[in-house]
Amino acid sequence: MRYYPAPESAIQMPDLIEAVRMAFMDHGNGRCEMPPKSYVSLPGGDFRTMPSYLPSLNVAGVKVVNVHPDNRNVGLPTVMGLTILLDPPTGRPVSILNATGLTDLRTGAAAAVATSALAPVKNGTLGLIGAGRQARSGLLAIGEVFGIETVKVWSRSRKTAEDLASRFPSLDIRVTSLEQAAGSDVLLTTTPSVSPVVMNDWISDGTHINAIGADAPGKQELDPTILMRAEIFVDDRKQAVHSGEVNVPIRDGLFKPENIVGTLGEVLIGRIGRSSREAITIFDSTGIAITDLAIASEAVKRGEFVELPFKP
Amino acid sequence: MRYYPAPESAIQMPDLIEAVRMAFMDHGNGRCEMPPKSYVSLPGGDFRTMPSYLPSLNVAGVKVVNVHPDNRNVGLPTVMGLTILLDPPTGRPVSILNATGLTDLRTGAAAAVATSALAPVKNGTLGLIGAGRQARSGLLAIGEVFGIETVKVWSRSRKTAEDLASRFPSLDIRVTSLEQAAGSDVLLTTTPSVSPVVMNDWISDGTHINAIGADAPGKQELDPTILMRAEIFVDDRKQAVHSGEVNVPIRDGLFKPENIVGTLGEVLIGRIGRSSREAITIFDSTGIAITDLAIASEAVKRGEFVELPFKP
Repeated sequence: MRYYPAPESAIQMPDLIEAVRMAFMDHGNGRCEMPPKSYVSLPGGDFRTMPSYLPSLNVAGVKVVNVHPDNRNVGLPTVMGLTILLDPPTGRPVSILNATGLTDLRTGAAAAVATSALAPVKNGTLGLIGAGRQARSGLLAIGEVFGIETVKVWSRSRKTAEDLASRFPSLDIRVTSLEQAAGSDVLLTTTPSVSPVVMNDWISDGTHINAIGADAPGKQELDPTILMRAEIFVDDRKQAVHSGEVNVPIRDGLFKPENIVGTLGEVLIGRIGRSSREAITIFDSTGIAITDLAIASEAVKRGEFVELPFKP
Repeated sequence: MRYYPAPESAIQMPDLIEAVRMAFMDHGNGRCEMPPKSYVSLPGGDFRTMPSYLPSLNVAGVKVVNVHPDNRNVGLPTVMGLTILLDPPTGRPVSILNATGLTDLRTGAAAAVATSALAPVKNGTLGLIGAGRQARSGLLAIGEVFGIETVKVWSRSRKTAEDLASRFPSLDIRVTSLEQAAGSDVLLTTTPSVSPVVMNDWISDGTHINAIGADAPGKQELDPTILMRAEIFVDDRKQAVHSGEVNVPIRDGLFKPENIVGTLGEVLIGRIGRSSREAITIFDSTGIAITDLAIASEAVKRGEFVELPFKP
């Protein structure tokens, strides 16, 4: 059995995006086993368990990942994770991966896949609402598939936004107001908000929004009026209704699950798509287990590992 | 982060039984977080993910465990597992344990806890239906709480039964017919059967049965007529209805979930119990996540480990 302490360093962004795209296509074609994420509440946060099986890659396994918003106070990231990979025909555990860095990368890669499939333009401005780790990996990933002319970044903490800008000196990144950032061609929202941050008036026709932040019941980032105007694509229907951007509007009776257009996987296999150049599209991302399996499967090809004794 | 390759060697059976008993009591008192087990089908088997949080021990985590009945053909056990422990206030992963041996032990310990709480006698004959790893650990554990006068063992393979007998030379163990083994004071059934193995006529009043084998939809070991005569105690209601001994009779309309008397935890805290000396009691065990946490928590106190790098 192998342990991979830093598997994220072994994969290149283009390979990662391709692995995530293939996993979404398998999902669109119904070629996977994936029960909904399971949540357990803890003091100060929660942890989620994400089991799945992806026959196309002959890989099965589980990601275990926490969300503790106040961890920065003790010098730890909000999110940490481990992924266990099993050999499908015997169930034997074969690999354990530190999934902390991989989780940021796969979330960014999913936003890139959605942007390339749903944005009506191939280049333009990118607005970042929230400027933490997910914003950084999303920026890197979206940059692989979308011609970023200008980045407009807003964060509750101006320092965090400036820090993000300073990490990418070769890009034209501007720290802006919330409204200015929201007026971009493509948006990436990654805040842990429990009330709307992005208002309807700020969003122009033809915008594509990657709504990443809402990933648990009670969380939301977008004015529900945007949802009523927009065409909404989810990563997984059950998970989105339970914990995605739509979860609060559904709970409040402002949005109906049947108004979800479909999944990103269905877009990728050509079954559905945006209806017009002017439509607003939203990718409601909760994070699906098979994308974690797909990138873990990519990472173990070249990653450095420690051999561990495992006597069955 | 620590990896424990053989944590089962670090715990003594009495401590294990006590840890499992305390976990069941927390369950009876509603002092735990435990979503139902999640199943993923694989070629030739499945794997289960068992997340939970046990505040009394300040431990949270997940066991990942497979069941592949044909693994013996490739020299592997049917069941292998890993347990991940997290620090509840931060969600940080702190330990990974090989849970293969621990799983057998905790299943045996649960049967011992149930036997001491539900059997109407303190000593007598023990019948083993099935003679594999779970039967061996169950025999060891039940021996701690019940005065075993004679063991009657039956297995589909006589050789497996003889092998079990030869491992315990100090005990009076007899390889018998199915009917003779079933006529014991306390029974432990551990077969992977999908149709009844133990018939109603063979079961006397006052018998206590630990029904361990049925742990997935479609599995059953007992003639449903026994269930109608008996008082049934489960480890967890949702899991038992989904995958315990009662799952097939419920599916077939022969048994109603509301006829389950209660949980083992409720027995241990004194809320319920067997109604009379003559009643037949059944402990329907599916295996609950908090017992895995409890024994892992016990094992890491003294187990040998390998230190692993984990950079959050």
